[in-house]
This record gives sequence, C-alpha cells and structure tokens, in this order.
Amino acid sequence: MPHRKVNIDRVFHALGDPTRRALVERLSEGPISVSRLAAPLAITLAAVVQHLQVLEKSGLVRTEKVGRIRTCRIETAGLSVVEQWIENRRSTWERRLDLLGVLLEEEPEK
Amino acid sequence: MPHRKVNIDRVFHALGDPTRRALVERLSEGPISVSRLAAPLAITLAAVVQHLQVLEKSGLVRTEKVGRIRTCRIETAGLSVVEQWIENRRSTWERRLDLLGVLLEEEPEK
Repeated sequence: MPHRKVNIDRVFHALGDPTRRALVERLSEGPISVSRLAAPLAITLAAVVQHLQVLEKSGLVRTEKVGRIRTCRIETAGLSVVEQWIENRRSTWERRLDLLGVLLEEEPEK
Repeated sequence: MPHRKVNIDRVFHALGDPTRRALVERLSEGPISVSRLAAPLAITLAAVVQHLQVLEKSGLVRTEKVGRIRTCRIETAGLSVVEQWIENRRSTWERRLDLLGVLLEEEPEK
C-alpha cells in the first residue's frame, strides 16, 4: 500500500480538533461515503470536506471517488505514527522507573 | 496524585509542535531543571518556558519550584489520554476486521 511519508506534526494537529476526531472515530467503524458521514453532523458538507482534506493530508484518512460517490476510509499510517511515539516515551520512563526500583532495593538496610 | 481534568484537544495541540515533543522526549528520561532542559536547545530560555507552560496546561508536564530552581517532570495523565483514544480506535477497527474475516470464512464455497 503506497503512501507518502507521514508528518507527525500534521497528525497531532489534525487530531487536536474534536470534529476531526469524531470523523476518525466514525471511520474506525468502516468505510462510508462523504455524504453519509456528514449527514448526522451539525456542520455543512463543505466543512466536513475541509476536515477530511486535513485528515487525508496527515495520513489519517484515505478517500476514493468511484462514479459520483466519494468513499472515505481510515488510513492506519497516521495513527500508527502517534501510537509509536507515545509507546517510545512510555518505554523510556518505565525503564527509568524499573532502574529506580533496582537502585532502591540495593540500598543497604539500616 | 491530584490533577485537573485533561483536555484532549490541548494535548494533541501541544504535541503537534516538534520543540514541545523534544521536551517531552527529554523529560521521559527523568526530571530536570528548566535551565538544564533549555541548555542544549537552540532557542531562548523564555521560549522554553513558554513551551513548558503549554505542556503544563495540557497535563503533559508538571513543574515545581524549590528555592530558585524550577524542576520539570513528565505527567503521565496527558499521554495516557492520547494513548487511550488511539487504543479505542484500534480496537474498533480490529474488531471490524475480525468480523470481516469471519464473514469471508462463512462464504459458501463454489
């Protein structure tokens, strides 16, 4: 599956908006057309399309037009980049906490 | 550990900046004073303090002043909120893929 390099700044920026997160949440459940995606939302179709463009540029969503229907689906690349970054932070501080634990155990008893 | 409710919009926004991510990466390795945190960076101390304020407001960092030294440390609340959000998306789409797999297996053979 070819896709351009994901820019992590863009992914975090894209997910900082509650409407865009709601779109990603809906798309996690499966592909859907833009018009069906927009229907339950209290914003215009044009606004939804703009949010989708931000999501698409950040590697979080893919859209494909077949005939007159544009279908959107989740693109795992964007979320994976964020997941990996968080995971790396967690492993760094957990390793540090483990080390602290070992050091405390090694303290001579009084 | 008392802390105010984390705002996920703010956390994503805060992490969308490469300097702020670099600060969080350094703080994952352990607590450090603001001046030592700033020393290797090619930006002013004032800029570092501003970034730290954004990180503190979003629940990603805690700072504490003792005497004349302000020490910063990672606050896990912010990262956990993002981690949980991503994890929820992943479990939704993996459940869907599992279901698709079951449906495909149930297809009658030709």
